[in-house]
Amino acid sequence: MTPEEFRAAAHELIDWLVDRRVAIEDRPVRPPVEPGDIRRALPSQPPQGGDSASDLIADLESIIAPGITEVQHPMHFGWFPSNASLSSILGDFASSGLASLGISWESSPSLTEVEEVVVDWLRELTGLSDAWSGVIQDTASTACLVAMLAAREQATEHAQAGGGVLGFGKRLHVYTTGEAHSSVRKGALLAGFAADDIRVIEVDPVSRDMRADALAEAMAADVAAGGVPTIVVASLGSTSVTAFDPLPEIIDIARRHGAWIHADAAMAGSAMLLPEYHHLFAGIEDADSISWNPHKWMGTILDTSLLYLRDPEHLIRVMSTNPSYLQSTAGGEATQYRDWGIPLGRRFRALKLWYQLRLDGPESIRQRLRRDLDNAQWFADRIAEKPGWEVVAPVRLQTVCVRHTPAGLEGDAAAISDHNQRWVRDVNVSGAAFLSPSMLDGGWMARVSIGVESTERRHLEQLLDLMDEHTRI
Amino acid sequence: MTPEEFRAAAHELIDWLVDRRVAIEDRPVRPPVEPGDIRRALPSQPPQGGDSASDLIADLESIIAPGITEVQHPMHFGWFPSNASLSSILGDFASSGLASLGISWESSPSLTEVEEVVVDWLRELTGLSDAWSGVIQDTASTACLVAMLAAREQATEHAQAGGGVLGFGKRLHVYTTGEAHSSVRKGALLAGFAADDIRVIEVDPVSRDMRADALAEAMAADVAAGGVPTIVVASLGSTSVTAFDPLPEIIDIARRHGAWIHADAAMAGSAMLLPEYHHLFAGIEDADSISWNPHKWMGTILDTSLLYLRDPEHLIRVMSTNPSYLQSTAGGEATQYRDWGIPLGRRFRALKLWYQLRLDGPESIRQRLRRDLDNAQWFADRIAEKPGWEVVAPVRLQTVCVRHTPAGLEGDAAAISDHNQRWVRDVNVSGAAFLSPSMLDGGWMARVSIGVESTERRHLEQLLDLMDEHTRI
Repeated sequence: MTPEEFRAAAHELIDWLVDRRVAIEDRPVRPPVEPGDIRRALPSQPPQGGDSASDLIADLESIIAPGITEVQHPMHFGWFPSNASLSSILGDFASSGLASLGISWESSPSLTEVEEVVVDWLRELTGLSDAWSGVIQDTASTACLVAMLAAREQATEHAQAGGGVLGFGKRLHVYTTGEAHSSVRKGALLAGFAADDIRVIEVDPVSRDMRADALAEAMAADVAAGGVPTIVVASLGSTSVTAFDPLPEIIDIARRHGAWIHADAAMAGSAMLLPEYHHLFAGIEDADSISWNPHKWMGTILDTSLLYLRDPEHLIRVMSTNPSYLQSTAGGEATQYRDWGIPLGRRFRALKLWYQLRLDGPESIRQRLRRDLDNAQWFADRIAEKPGWEVVAPVRLQTVCVRHTPAGLEGDAAAISDHNQRWVRDVNVSGAAFLSPSMLDGGWMARVSIGVESTERRHLEQLLDLMDEHTRI
Repeated sequence: MTPEEFRAAAHELIDWLVDRRVAIEDRPVRPPVEPGDIRRALPSQPPQGGDSASDLIADLESIIAPGITEVQHPMHFGWFPSNASLSSILGDFASSGLASLGISWESSPSLTEVEEVVVDWLRELTGLSDAWSGVIQDTASTACLVAMLAAREQATEHAQAGGGVLGFGKRLHVYTTGEAHSSVRKGALLAGFAADDIRVIEVDPVSRDMRADALAEAMAADVAAGGVPTIVVASLGSTSVTAFDPLPEIIDIARRHGAWIHADAAMAGSAMLLPEYHHLFAGIEDADSISWNPHKWMGTILDTSLLYLRDPEHLIRVMSTNPSYLQSTAGGEATQYRDWGIPLGRRFRALKLWYQLRLDGPESIRQRLRRDLDNAQWFADRIAEKPGWEVVAPVRLQTVCVRHTPAGLEGDAAAISDHNQRWVRDVNVSGAAFLSPSMLDGGWMARVSIGVESTERRHLEQLLDLMDEHTRI
């Protein structure tokens, strides 16, 4: 493809993409496709080449785009807001077009240093002190695994250098709650902790926040049994019900045993941009690592997850290799982000944040977050006053967990659970809106995650109508 | 940013990016910047917002782009070809613009199924049988870590489910060579193998390929000592000198001990597109996992690394979690790629391959690879006939390892090493070309990695002149 062919094709593609985004409300949120539908519509044999860029847009239009769940749709209330602000998409285009290679400082000084600048901007905007150093990871799942690895090597005094966990000879323990994201368990297992090394600490029955007294007991019991408390993953805004584990108490307990403290604020971290919500993050300054995802509610396009560390030198010691073919003339003064995570090659992801922050600006992002918080409160109030409906978890931020009990089913937990699973599925299959079903106390409920950039009050009104419609028996 | 503002800004950005790419030869390969230069040129305080997209292009032009090492420059011979073909950049734009969220099949059926289709296309184009199932990872480093984790759980019969490596009680061993990429050692250490569990197997002194007899001895010794041979990472085209470990013999030995075999063809895997080079990959069909990077020589923009597995069900068992909030109506029939790797959230990376293969087509890619192979052979012949110069490793593909011995320094290994480090640095600092210095037998040499899309014979002629110029004493 020549540069001029590319130029023409890119202009055509941009127009198609913008037109498509503008018309998003005309499409269903969840596409009416079944597993295998898209695959069957595409040739199983490799192409010969020679198709035109317009041919590809035609296939995007007729086959591929209709098989995408529209997470930027204003009626999308599933999982979490995956906003992909247009400003950050523009930054992503710049990143792709510059096609920079991040394997060392020398391979792209700008890629490294713009990343240092933007993670610092966001550190300051979220109220963290300059004792923190940041890096962009792909996702909070990976960031959590990285924290697990750092903690493992801290607890074993770098047993990776000799002997490993087997040579170290003591069991290493992870502490978290049943509310923690699935990536916490996954990260622990991948980092070499076993399922029976993971302590699922009891939570408060209402808020679902970790009980600090239960954590203290579990750690003391593990130490008494010869084990080593290695890491606590505190959920700051859990996926299902937005639980906030009590960080000051957790840190106090964990410090007594030398355990690493990782604060997982993947979804809720965006709220750190709002000073009036800082109380939810009290104590965070004293953690060892923090991760949160601008690619969720804040609206930077995936994959843009931040990991902040108090002691990057420790992580570098865990992650570093320095082969001759990557040595550069820049020497020790330059940051080598390859030693701050798993992959060697890195994209110029910082441009996504650089574009979003410079074009939209922090204040406009804050205004939008506050609108969503207001909307969530308004929606929870409407649910609370609706007969048969209840808000089943405290509304800490922008997620409202709801459950419907039809007349006549009161007290029949199994039937209520089935009913809630059914109506959520019906709403989702209709394409008119999308919610995530989730389990709470062994029964299904619906999470209404509010915060898509285009979601306004009227969309919540529509959702209330849909919920009425689909819960009529 | 409104859609119409975005449309205008994107068109402006496209034109700037294309103009910049066209003029690439006017710029130095390596920018004349020192650590901290870019950072100091950018504001340390967060922006207020309200900048225009044109302001950002101005800053890209004056600050950021001049701090990028131009890996698509025809005089770039460093590390590996990082081609970022324009067709794949277009696919990346489509991916960004569609802003799809890959956390489950349901969150974007097309993202999952187009990935299944394109990894299958490339499986077929590279001559692998349909016994292999593929997935896109960010990099071969991550793919290698994933293979290590799969191997660890195979050897311990899923000790992650209880007891872990400590409970399993036997040392687990990794086998590779000193030629293997640094990510192999890194992946092993992160997966919980210790440095003294890693066996660096002797290589042939000329080809640098692993010696199968040495592997057999090492495994036997480890078994005799009560250890478990867990994984062999065979380099198929090593970074430094393009060594090819003898896979058929390795597999024969490893199978006797139940070890996992991971074939790391990160750079050289593109040569599997050429039937006449399949002999270099003999035996690959019998490995357990294969990784290679279309984002290197084949020219798909980063991050596009392929991982193929014989038994994805084993990997899924190692990686899977299935929380209620990710359960979908699609049930068990749909592929859930989150269980094939570390991150939960995934981008629509398959579009980069879909665009490149459909627009450029396999035959035009093959022609380009063959041109590069011819160029490498031609270049090696020129070096071999040049007084004072030698080709210090067999030219297996497109990398030529060279060393210069100035008149009078013959036999003084330390001085020759210093001299080669110096002239490579001088060439790189000049900006006229870029080569990677690398160590061989304790002395510096230069790797000339040929394969940038825009590199033609005349650029190699220019490089020969530059090498003469910078090695004059």
